[in-house]
Amino acid sequence: MSDHTVKSYDEELAHLTNIIARMGGMAEAQFASALQALSKRDSDLAARVVAGDTRVDELEHEVQQFTVRLLALRQPVASDLRHIVAALKIGSELERVADYAANVAKRSLVLNQLPPVKPVAAVLHLAHLVQEILKDILDAYIERDVEKAIRVWNRDEEVDDLYTGLFRELITYMMEDPRTITACTHLMFMAKNIERIGDHATNIAETLHFLVVGTPIKGERPKGNTVDTE
Amino acid sequence: MSDHTVKSYDEELAHLTNIIARMGGMAEAQFASALQALSKRDSDLAARVVAGDTRVDELEHEVQQFTVRLLALRQPVASDLRHIVAALKIGSELERVADYAANVAKRSLVLNQLPPVKPVAAVLHLAHLVQEILKDILDAYIERDVEKAIRVWNRDEEVDDLYTGLFRELITYMMEDPRTITACTHLMFMAKNIERIGDHATNIAETLHFLVVGTPIKGERPKGNTVDTE
Repeated sequence: MSDHTVKSYDEELAHLTNIIARMGGMAEAQFASALQALSKRDSDLAARVVAGDTRVDELEHEVQQFTVRLLALRQPVASDLRHIVAALKIGSELERVADYAANVAKRSLVLNQLPPVKPVAAVLHLAHLVQEILKDILDAYIERDVEKAIRVWNRDEEVDDLYTGLFRELITYMMEDPRTITACTHLMFMAKNIERIGDHATNIAETLHFLVVGTPIKGERPKGNTVDTE
Repeated sequence: MSDHTVKSYDEELAHLTNIIARMGGMAEAQFASALQALSKRDSDLAARVVAGDTRVDELEHEVQQFTVRLLALRQPVASDLRHIVAALKIGSELERVADYAANVAKRSLVLNQLPPVKPVAAVLHLAHLVQEILKDILDAYIERDVEKAIRVWNRDEEVDDLYTGLFRELITYMMEDPRTITACTHLMFMAKNIERIGDHATNIAETLHFLVVGTPIKGERPKGNTVDTE
């Protein structure tokens, strides 16, 4: 096998990593814009986030097609296969992250038709934690940094605790003023979407760990939130 | 290549389909048990569903490991690759279906601590529609029945419309009696989990279509529910 052929294969594996990196960047940007739209009650921005989700879906298809081509044309050895399978899984996780970001933006569009409610601040607080975690795991993927992945994995509990507190706050708010129920239910679903983005960051951490180390992250996934109100 | 070797490869592809079929059966059973637990306020059953989710996760890992082994040891041609990638994706979808079923069961545990509320019936109605759809797509996968897959795909709108109606009913109920807010928010999340099971059935339909026909199901996915209350 000539150097040229080997290099070409490495280039293809690198290309796969690059598509994932691009998807990650887009998912981060979509999430940031959705939060900006929520914070500023900016429906135009929210609408652009919703429209922009197609681009992320297209990248995921590109990952899948490229993966299939890679598998068909090469005879990947074990470690390369792990890269390819990891790229498939992470691409799928990132498509969902972007999807949840678009869902947050969609709900903003409805929320902006209703009078503002105080707990938006708490939702944004949860979101900023999740943004940090998402950024960290994307950095960890690029750098193949397992330590960073483990740190991300351990922060899942932090997200769940914050989410549980927020959920309680919303229930209390709704009971005190039933006119806010519609707005607060939208915030609840937004909070759930954001919590799920955190879950997917944790999934990516698990995949990255398996990719680099070859074994699963040990022990049960840390679960701070049993079911919202406990 | 001897007949024995070729047969062995076909057996391995068949084995992959079988694991997916088993996962499908387990996801269906978990969903049915979760709904039974909700309907009968049966916390023991709910707890068993939650505990049983591990088994589905194990099957998903088996799919992934078997897939990687298959890819490493064989040089799959294009159509076989599509089977293998489809199995990976569908395994992932079914793991989520089972996960949502376990989430419904988890919420039952909390719901059973609260006085019963009337809208449970409407949640079960939505759930029974989704059960039908899930059964249909699993049959379609086993039979490689594209027509059935397309029918499932088109029912997504039915699920979204029912979900939207249920959401409105819950908001009204909460406004009329704020003491029911906690219970009704749990039902809302349950309904969302059930609606998402429907989404995953639609995803499986798309994957199956691509597997058999080689092209995506045409046109935008039918969306009856823009965002819950519209």
